[in-house]
Amino acid sequence: MCTGKLMVIGIGPGAPDEMTLRARSALESADVIVGYKTYLALLTPWLTGKKVVGSGMMQELQRCAEALKRARKGERVALISSGDAGVYGMAGPVYELLLESGWRPDGGLTVEVIPGVTALLSCASRIGAPLTHDFCAISLSDLLTPWTVIEKRLHAAASADFVTALYNPKSRKRTEQIVQAQAIFLHHRTPDTPVAIVTAAGRERESTTLADLATMLTHPIGMQTTLLIGNSTTFVQSGVMVTPRGYSDKYDLGKAMERT
Amino acid sequence: MCTGKLMVIGIGPGAPDEMTLRARSALESADVIVGYKTYLALLTPWLTGKKVVGSGMMQELQRCAEALKRARKGERVALISSGDAGVYGMAGPVYELLLESGWRPDGGLTVEVIPGVTALLSCASRIGAPLTHDFCAISLSDLLTPWTVIEKRLHAAASADFVTALYNPKSRKRTEQIVQAQAIFLHHRTPDTPVAIVTAAGRERESTTLADLATMLTHPIGMQTTLLIGNSTTFVQSGVMVTPRGYSDKYDLGKAMERT
Repeated sequence: MCTGKLMVIGIGPGAPDEMTLRARSALESADVIVGYKTYLALLTPWLTGKKVVGSGMMQELQRCAEALKRARKGERVALISSGDAGVYGMAGPVYELLLESGWRPDGGLTVEVIPGVTALLSCASRIGAPLTHDFCAISLSDLLTPWTVIEKRLHAAASADFVTALYNPKSRKRTEQIVQAQAIFLHHRTPDTPVAIVTAAGRERESTTLADLATMLTHPIGMQTTLLIGNSTTFVQSGVMVTPRGYSDKYDLGKAMERT
Repeated sequence: MCTGKLMVIGIGPGAPDEMTLRARSALESADVIVGYKTYLALLTPWLTGKKVVGSGMMQELQRCAEALKRARKGERVALISSGDAGVYGMAGPVYELLLESGWRPDGGLTVEVIPGVTALLSCASRIGAPLTHDFCAISLSDLLTPWTVIEKRLHAAASADFVTALYNPKSRKRTEQIVQAQAIFLHHRTPDTPVAIVTAAGRERESTTLADLATMLTHPIGMQTTLLIGNSTTFVQSGVMVTPRGYSDKYDLGKAMERT
């Protein structure tokens, strides 16, 4: 009977204090830590005395397979995702590989997914309160998803007035998707719709820019950027981006302040 | 010059170890903790020696105003949201009240939003990996939002094949919205589309049920429930709900396992 354990850990945006207590305990309890080199570099305080297996970008399946192989041998393995472990994260390929191989939850090898603060939450917190109403997350990477599917979702999100987080907006090789996403949103929303451009939240060189749909492409956007496009009621005032929940339609905000 | 500080803290789903280290430090540093009584009960270890101001449900604006009043007097105030502080959370009304009163970020009173693990992430982690592809969050509460807006978003999410998290699906008084949401999804998706029903994640009496679109309403759904409706590729196997990212279309998963 296998006694190994695979913990798929979302470490949050990057700053060590933005991971959960549960994620920290899991890291501390691990025999071996497997992850993308860039993320492992964020975890230096927790790597001392551990076996560490780092690999390059685009090697998700290899990392999963390595982590599973070690857990099957009886090791206690931490597999690292940035942000949340499930949002476009490692929990997906881990379960796909496991189920493909006939694994069952009661079969010995234990799997635990430990959630974390995904990019749309960490980015939103840095610029105000843009997620106070319905929202969606769309990845612009067409490496594993046909562009027609992504395009349809962009139209749906824009036309139904969701606050929209764009993950993986651009890389050195993929530069056209964000241009098309902007065009689709401009088809449904006004050019002055607020857009937040947050890069490397919680890491060195963090940057935050408030722009709008018309001007968003004049600012730097890269691999570590997440964009948040407001809905039709989102506004920017005094440098803060807010999507109202609707209290002001129902209650007098000034009176709410006076009452106390 | 006001030296007070208002920290709007997302404490995660409820279990004390699912909050971030940053949230814990913020709680520890606060003079006073303001929140909905049910959430304060989850924070008992951090309340000792603090001033605590609890209030009932539906009193969001009063809680915000109370927290702001105290911060303006120079206190260091922690205002509690469950899950994330920005997702349908307290960060929204806080900034609305502040901006309404002419506050500016450089004007003395400091505001910090501390993100946390929102319900869709904590629920997803408990049932597998349903969020490995584009997703959206829709609140079914029509207290502050016209039902026509919610209905349009449900149609958009269902037709564009988003994995969909339903927040606030049902309360004692609101029982029809979830019935209508099911009907809208059945219009666009097959009856066997997987649906996870997660109640009180991270709290006492946590329960997790895997159902499908056809049968979802035969299970208990309440105030503390979040539903996750899969997309057209989401499957359940061995009790695990997975939305594939698309690796298996591009790579041979069996070979990925053999290679290592």
